Amino acid sequence: MGRMVRWEPGARDRLQAAALDLYATRGFDETTVAEIALAAGLTERTFFRHFADKREVIFGRQETFQGGFVEHIASGEVDGPPLAIVAAAVTAAADFFRDERLPYSRHRQAVVDSHPELRERELLKMAALAGAIAQALRDRGIAEPAATLAAESGVTVFRVAFAQWLAPESTRPLADIEREIFAELQSLTAAASLTR
Amino acid sequence: MGRMVRWEPGARDRLQAAALDLYATRGFDETTVAEIALAAGLTERTFFRHFADKREVIFGRQETFQGGFVEHIASGEVDGPPLAIVAAAVTAAADFFRDERLPYSRHRQAVVDSHPELRERELLKMAALAGAIAQALRDRGIAEPAATLAAESGVTVFRVAFAQWLAPESTRPLADIEREIFAELQSLTAAASLTR
Repeated sequence: MGRMVRWEPGARDRLQAAALDLYATRGFDETTVAEIALAAGLTERTFFRHFADKREVIFGRQETFQGGFVEHIASGEVDGPPLAIVAAAVTAAADFFRDERLPYSRHRQAVVDSHPELRERELLKMAALAGAIAQALRDRGIAEPAATLAAESGVTVFRVAFAQWLAPESTRPLADIEREIFAELQSLTAAASLTR
Repeated sequence: MGRMVRWEPGARDRLQAAALDLYATRGFDETTVAEIALAAGLTERTFFRHFADKREVIFGRQETFQGGFVEHIASGEVDGPPLAIVAAAVTAAADFFRDERLPYSRHRQAVVDSHPELRERELLKMAALAGAIAQALRDRGIAEPAATLAAESGVTVFRVAFAQWLAPESTRPLADIEREIFAELQSLTAAASLTR
């Protein structure tokens, strides 16, 4: 982390932790960037070197997040039908969300869910992820509309599985849940006689 | 239209047409609400009685748009697997987008595509549509995650089909394109051997 800001190791993580705490305890609207910076022992200027705004601070780097999916597709490690390539990439990217991250991820999701602006930002990040996956598939020669359909399906499975992973009673690894949801999507489409 | 503002028939349509023209000719950023109102022969106050902001003006009423999908699901007219219910609702809602609307819809989409803020707003409208469809399915007793998977798949098919409908060379009715994309989604998921 922090390739461009090597001179302040940990600043990014500290700002994220401080923001999450303040959003959870005082609320997103009531918290200012100045307060986040202060709580992290840093300046507002440092905040804006790392994040564009108050919303971005609790989202990871989009390129890091997307990278896990896109690089797996680009590697060509898995060949076969488009959705099989996507499913392999989605389950591989689950490594990013280890079980030790679960308490943090649950806390973070509760904050995101609590505010419309953060929920919107999350939706847009997911849409960007789907776009990046579709592009990675096209780069491998997969035509439209298969590329977009497979990418959007993969992101839908990821979102549904991620919510189940975060559920209070859940103890299963994310990749296992994702495999189950992919299978559910398959049986759902197979069951539908769509050419009525 | 205009249930709450009966005393100004046509105001909503005039504001939408004026906004679309100004966004296309001068750009979204360069156009003010005052200018839109002036071009429509109305006041700023009237604008804000109809629309929350500059972005909303080129989107139809979300409830009208969603209604075409949701009411069809709620009617119970189509029974069967969740995705068959969704596919029937999506193709039925295509009646809203008649071929005589095509020039307007192409013009509108070009404006939406030209500005990140409008593209974002459109993504959020689509996410809201998927949420409303999932809710309509749950109201019919369909459990999660099937409800969300079917709803998201239906919206993905709608979006992909809608883009093809708008394509310059396209002449086919939206519902026909939607049926084809649903079939493509089926073959895509059937082909994927996901339990590697």
